Amino acid sequence: MTKKYAVGIDVGGTTAKFGIVDHNGKILEQDRVPSNEHEIVEDFIDDLYAKLYPMIQKVGGIANCVGIGMGAPNGNFYSGTIEYAPNLKWKGIIPIADLMEKKFGMVTKLTNDANAAAVGEMMYGCTKNIKDFITITLGTGVGSGIVIDGKIVLGHDGFAGELGHTIIRPNGRLHKATGMRGSLESYASATGVRETAIEMLTAHPEEESLLRNYSINELTSESVYDCAMKGDTIANSIFDFTGQILGESLANFIMFSSPEAIVLFGGLTKAGNLLLNPTRKRMEANLLPIFQNKVKLLFSELKEADAAILGASALVWKMKS
Amino acid sequence: MTKKYAVGIDVGGTTAKFGIVDHNGKILEQDRVPSNEHEIVEDFIDDLYAKLYPMIQKVGGIANCVGIGMGAPNGNFYSGTIEYAPNLKWKGIIPIADLMEKKFGMVTKLTNDANAAAVGEMMYGCTKNIKDFITITLGTGVGSGIVIDGKIVLGHDGFAGELGHTIIRPNGRLHKATGMRGSLESYASATGVRETAIEMLTAHPEEESLLRNYSINELTSESVYDCAMKGDTIANSIFDFTGQILGESLANFIMFSSPEAIVLFGGLTKAGNLLLNPTRKRMEANLLPIFQNKVKLLFSELKEADAAILGASALVWKMKS
Repeated sequence: MTKKYAVGIDVGGTTAKFGIVDHNGKILEQDRVPSNEHEIVEDFIDDLYAKLYPMIQKVGGIANCVGIGMGAPNGNFYSGTIEYAPNLKWKGIIPIADLMEKKFGMVTKLTNDANAAAVGEMMYGCTKNIKDFITITLGTGVGSGIVIDGKIVLGHDGFAGELGHTIIRPNGRLHKATGMRGSLESYASATGVRETAIEMLTAHPEEESLLRNYSINELTSESVYDCAMKGDTIANSIFDFTGQILGESLANFIMFSSPEAIVLFGGLTKAGNLLLNPTRKRMEANLLPIFQNKVKLLFSELKEADAAILGASALVWKMKS
Repeated sequence: MTKKYAVGIDVGGTTAKFGIVDHNGKILEQDRVPSNEHEIVEDFIDDLYAKLYPMIQKVGGIANCVGIGMGAPNGNFYSGTIEYAPNLKWKGIIPIADLMEKKFGMVTKLTNDANAAAVGEMMYGCTKNIKDFITITLGTGVGSGIVIDGKIVLGHDGFAGELGHTIIRPNGRLHKATGMRGSLESYASATGVRETAIEMLTAHPEEESLLRNYSINELTSESVYDCAMKGDTIANSIFDFTGQILGESLANFIMFSSPEAIVLFGGLTKAGNLLLNPTRKRMEANLLPIFQNKVKLLFSELKEADAAILGASALVWKMKS
């Protein structure tokens, strides 16, 4: 019998989502367990097992599944360990792939969530026929997965692809979590858009803006989007600036690996052309002629709600150990 | 009979250097022909043939050679063509690999000179046992070759690895040849060091410096080196600044592909620790903790005079088509 299904598990800071996925990206079963309530990882795995194992039985048991794919912060493909993940309760180096294999009796492939998103895009999304691309996740932070010649770039230690932390404005905005200044993430994330809004409103106190109807606490990338769509000048400038920073960064990435496509994913992409147009413009303007008008700038084709499980499940099919 | 030798040809703007190389990187025979005197490339190849073919005969003929490797500006591995190389006489798209194969009756592998340098380092130099590294050539310009999992990164179109043109100082120094501002090459090349010298001497007219004994035309990265070694403050500041820019760029590159080593090569590396120390310091300071104190920053082990021929010859052994 050909094994038809893969298990996908996405471990986030508060919740782990998991599901059973077929080769076409259809999620047959899914559920979730908390990931911030277990002091030791074994207890988390026990809870996961209690919900997940019956699902696996339902689709024909282990004999019908190729394995488990897992996306987790600081997940290392080579070692199968989660290493010093700041947002998880389990500290130090957690050999989660080994623990999963013992508990479930199935091969388990681990990587970080951003790499899993890229592999999911390659298996089920808009890069099925593309062998060189970069996925940029624009959410609370900025994640990235780099694919070269059909393979995710892991680097010598498994930690490659931290493009959100590359510096695009030396001595620029402080990124509080890392203490670094001027990283892509400090501008081109939902958090960054909010900060840009506060900066621009403060810098131009004389300029009217719909954004002034929001309290500082209410200001989010969504409120900036709403105001921009109503024609608000400052709100539009905020997306222009965000696209400028993102476009300049993408140009640098293109001159590194010359991808056929860059896939944007995550909450900030809801801004659509408000973000895409300035991004593309500044990307092209910062490329050598030999790279211009070649790179497809795409939005992900995966539904955000499903993407994490899909990406994790795709690891099983796409990642060779 | 096992084929023992490879031909390496490095096509530069004025001269093409070529030689016969064994598997250990020993150059048995070498010579050169002008590369700027032939209006059409076929005439250049005829001249090359006249000098190179007798060499091949001398080592046992074509039967004893695995093929020809060629490094050339804008050389494209996939197509075997030189495409719109600004510094060469032959304009447009030149199918040089095909022409060479017809003339010599030997397989010919082409890539750009910076990629060839990286492949040479992998075959004969300091990265023989390293599968993930980046070579940065600090010469008149800044070239780069990126190796991931033992393979040179070519990108979807064969033009990956133009790290010298990534922007590290947005709206920074004008790079005359490209019209771009703030690229790595505009600072961390011999040309860039000269420009930094002129800028610093102009900005601090009150400060004494041995560099003021040189005319503007005589100021070179070598004169800056000489003065720095004599303890000149401005000359030392010039290398500090150059290392700062280079170190910040290297940190960005590391967070892309997480290499085990970065290999510096080219004329500017003669500055030794004057350049290496500030580079390493700024590189480490701009890395996420997960990347710190892991990446080897090395000088190439290839002799500069031999490196171009060695790198080109290594293409034959290391590049699969």
